Amino acid sequence: MTESLENWLESSVAWAENAMRAAMDPMELGPKSFAEALRYPTFAGGKRLRPCLVRLINHEMGGRDADAESPAVAIEWVHTYSLVHDDLPCMDDDDLRRGKPTTHKVYGEATAVLVGDGLLTLAFELLANRGGPNALDMIAVLARAAGPAGMVGGQHLDLSAEQGGVNTDGVREIHRLKTAALIEAACELGALAAGASAAARQAARRYGLALGLCFQAVDDCLDVTGQATDLGKTPGKDAAAGKATLVADLGLDGAQEEAGLRAAEARVAAQEAGFQPQGFALGLVDWLLSRTH
Amino acid sequence: MTESLENWLESSVAWAENAMRAAMDPMELGPKSFAEALRYPTFAGGKRLRPCLVRLINHEMGGRDADAESPAVAIEWVHTYSLVHDDLPCMDDDDLRRGKPTTHKVYGEATAVLVGDGLLTLAFELLANRGGPNALDMIAVLARAAGPAGMVGGQHLDLSAEQGGVNTDGVREIHRLKTAALIEAACELGALAAGASAAARQAARRYGLALGLCFQAVDDCLDVTGQATDLGKTPGKDAAAGKATLVADLGLDGAQEEAGLRAAEARVAAQEAGFQPQGFALGLVDWLLSRTH
Repeated sequence: MTESLENWLESSVAWAENAMRAAMDPMELGPKSFAEALRYPTFAGGKRLRPCLVRLINHEMGGRDADAESPAVAIEWVHTYSLVHDDLPCMDDDDLRRGKPTTHKVYGEATAVLVGDGLLTLAFELLANRGGPNALDMIAVLARAAGPAGMVGGQHLDLSAEQGGVNTDGVREIHRLKTAALIEAACELGALAAGASAAARQAARRYGLALGLCFQAVDDCLDVTGQATDLGKTPGKDAAAGKATLVADLGLDGAQEEAGLRAAEARVAAQEAGFQPQGFALGLVDWLLSRTH
Repeated sequence: MTESLENWLESSVAWAENAMRAAMDPMELGPKSFAEALRYPTFAGGKRLRPCLVRLINHEMGGRDADAESPAVAIEWVHTYSLVHDDLPCMDDDDLRRGKPTTHKVYGEATAVLVGDGLLTLAFELLANRGGPNALDMIAVLARAAGPAGMVGGQHLDLSAEQGGVNTDGVREIHRLKTAALIEAACELGALAAGASAAARQAARRYGLALGLCFQAVDDCLDVTGQATDLGKTPGKDAAAGKATLVADLGLDGAQEEAGLRAAEARVAAQEAGFQPQGFALGLVDWLLSRTH
């Protein structure tokens, strides 16, 4: 392995953004003013973690990059829609996302609701148009992870938890649904793109779930320890909003310990899945654990 | 034909609602409080026009009712999600829907956004789980009609049109996207459920498009002529909101004439599609034209 993880991530972000453009350009995006609003949050930057994971797992399981494009794009559009809706005044009420005005600040609330709806719908249209033997499985995996039994249900729990009364297990359940379900799905989509076996799909899911829980535990810590300039948002916002977080429940040390445990689980899962011992799947665990934004 | 159209519609509504229950019951709907919120708009009544059309066209093209169930349910969930989002304060701001409090009045705005998101996602999960040779085509048809190039784009145009400056062709374009695209898709889904040929799919679409435009033209008229008790909502609301409607543009007589023209087109399309000369596809055109709610 000659390429560094940082270089690989950088090239994967460019790959994901190129794939998003190539996928969106030929699609009919409706009225011109709406198409413009759709593109705004889609190409507003970000870590592109989920498409990077689709690419990574597909590669680890023997697939070509081209096979991973549609699922990588679809899951990033689902993630993007969820951010647009989460930022709405009736949800988390955020004016800034990655240092830029949120979609509803630029285009108004009604358009932001519709942009989210549109991106979610386009994600499924893209996978349906992809075709191929695994397209239906991909749609089922993505829908399940994004829907009531996954991300959307987790967001509901998260908002309900602001009333208080949530213990550590409750916070873990929120994290599993709200964040880890989609990261788990990214890894399973990578396995599906590579045409992997059912057992390999399962191994990819275990890695993704642990990685997703680690990611969200670190997120909770960064709300306390992060710098606004790194995060592109105001630190301390979760605490101020009375959010149920691991830090609120276990303290910063406890939350960092939890992140470390999830990272260890992800490393074990990566080994069991047969990922390269010095490869990016393992490197990514440490990178996520030590990230500052 | 011994059964009357009214009886057939009544039995089709019951069929659609049974199919919706049978489809939703085994699905994982996430946290209990969220599952309850999801069911609220789903089982709050309604004409169930779109699933009735899936059943009707599937039957006309030789399919069995069981083949039509998943697409009928999926399109009604998409329609239901669109109503939940349309009723939000930042959109049409409606407190009542079919005489009952809207979802955000009962569960709050944040949950209403998530309920809409959840129903849209479940619709695609259901079709993906259905499997079969036409499932991918069904997902593509539904996503296209519901997305930016269809319903969502039409809703955006409709909201933008409140600023004024929309001529009759502009109103027709809004109607085509906002309403007719999904009704057209219902008919195409019926053809797909029956395993119909590409030519038959096309014929079903022509019928559905004309029927959808007729439906929305009648809707515009009912906003002026309808009774609150029949409509389950306040008449005159479109006019008060400065909505672009056919009545505002052509007057009531002109809008009724337009509805009649679309009905005539739907009858021609039904004949060209080879639907039964005295059958429900033709009867439905007159029924929609003369409806009072």
